[in-house]
Amino acid sequence: MPSPSTLERIRVVLARPSHAGNIGAAARAMKTMGFADLRLVAPRRAPDAEARSLAAGAAELLAAARTCERLEDALGDTVLAVGFSARGRDLSQRLRSLREAAPEILSDAAHGPVALVFGNETYGLTNEEMGHCGMQVSIPANPEYSSLNLAAAVQVACYELASSARSFALPRRGEHDEATHEDVEALIAHWQSAMIASGYLDPGQPGRLMERLRRLLARAELERSEVKLLRGMLGAFEARMRR
Amino acid sequence: MPSPSTLERIRVVLARPSHAGNIGAAARAMKTMGFADLRLVAPRRAPDAEARSLAAGAAELLAAARTCERLEDALGDTVLAVGFSARGRDLSQRLRSLREAAPEILSDAAHGPVALVFGNETYGLTNEEMGHCGMQVSIPANPEYSSLNLAAAVQVACYELASSARSFALPRRGEHDEATHEDVEALIAHWQSAMIASGYLDPGQPGRLMERLRRLLARAELERSEVKLLRGMLGAFEARMRR
Repeated sequence: MPSPSTLERIRVVLARPSHAGNIGAAARAMKTMGFADLRLVAPRRAPDAEARSLAAGAAELLAAARTCERLEDALGDTVLAVGFSARGRDLSQRLRSLREAAPEILSDAAHGPVALVFGNETYGLTNEEMGHCGMQVSIPANPEYSSLNLAAAVQVACYELASSARSFALPRRGEHDEATHEDVEALIAHWQSAMIASGYLDPGQPGRLMERLRRLLARAELERSEVKLLRGMLGAFEARMRR
Repeated sequence: MPSPSTLERIRVVLARPSHAGNIGAAARAMKTMGFADLRLVAPRRAPDAEARSLAAGAAELLAAARTCERLEDALGDTVLAVGFSARGRDLSQRLRSLREAAPEILSDAAHGPVALVFGNETYGLTNEEMGHCGMQVSIPANPEYSSLNLAAAVQVACYELASSARSFALPRRGEHDEATHEDVEALIAHWQSAMIASGYLDPGQPGRLMERLRRLLARAELERSEVKLLRGMLGAFEARMRR
């Protein structure tokens, strides 16, 4: 069973929130469920008096929230980023329900930082933002009106994970050593330059190739040793192509 | 499995809410989870413009909410009233967790109206009000800070019941077109020959390289279009290496 510290290792990332009040309400929601780490990506307004008022007893958590400019900055050290989305995407990653996904999220959190990523109140996560997420999760809702308030979505996600943690059993994979977001980003950059060298990727007309590759790799939840394997292979291709 | 109409038969009763905004936010929370029947007992303020704004797409549900003076009036026709409380009471009824209680609540709702009763934001349900409830339920929370916002508590309760009822199907991964075993085998064979051509894989001493690649690809659950993308890339690498 994960200790409270497992939940503390799960961070909530709000990407481009519009309303400061929602940030405060999300902080309160987190604290009621035992979560502690809040990150804000390019909020339209910094937490203000309204945010502090809605944070209620979670004022310290709100005050400690770190702000950054790009989503990647909030994910650098994570072993898993979970993107919340109401709808399926074209670039099809499997959409799991929150409840279905909870055991895996908790098991990953036992190995390193995990991020729960929520998009803007009006338009959610962009495809680019979702591309940084290794798992796509939906809170099942009324098909006729599925628009949860942002803080309400954070409350439900934290509730589900805290509840699942109590009945949580076995880690998913054996002796694994998950790659961090940074490891995977470096792999993707490497892959991109190899594809450019081969002529397969035209930097002038990239299309959606990199986005599709990113998604595929995110889904694979690579281990560190696999990143190494793939980069070794790319290096060998590059060396041979240069001859 | 309960039908959506079972959820519609579960009403939410807010006893003496202080803030009209919370009434609106509770209405929104209900609708997102497929609930429809809201009752207000002696609200300090009737739903106003702020309530309507926070109800968002649930304005009709809010407008249809009935108001009464006493809790009993909102419970008359129910087969079960569930009182939500953060703490246990002297009047010792067993305090169950929401998740534990959900199956019984749903099964009762198949027989007649069920009420979920939430108390005032500051002091919760009085002992007298709890006395009208046949079941006492708690949303498990952080012992150091268990104060969920009223609408957040309604959101979690409705989410838990809707999830337990599994009354909404989750959208499946968008138009996907899973690769067959044969597709993946052909990809692996292609990958192997490209790695041999690059010198990265020594056919005389293959080690576990192919096994690891195979495992990684299996985990990614590739689509047909992704197999095509990867094979196109391998083909480009091969062509360039042959030059």
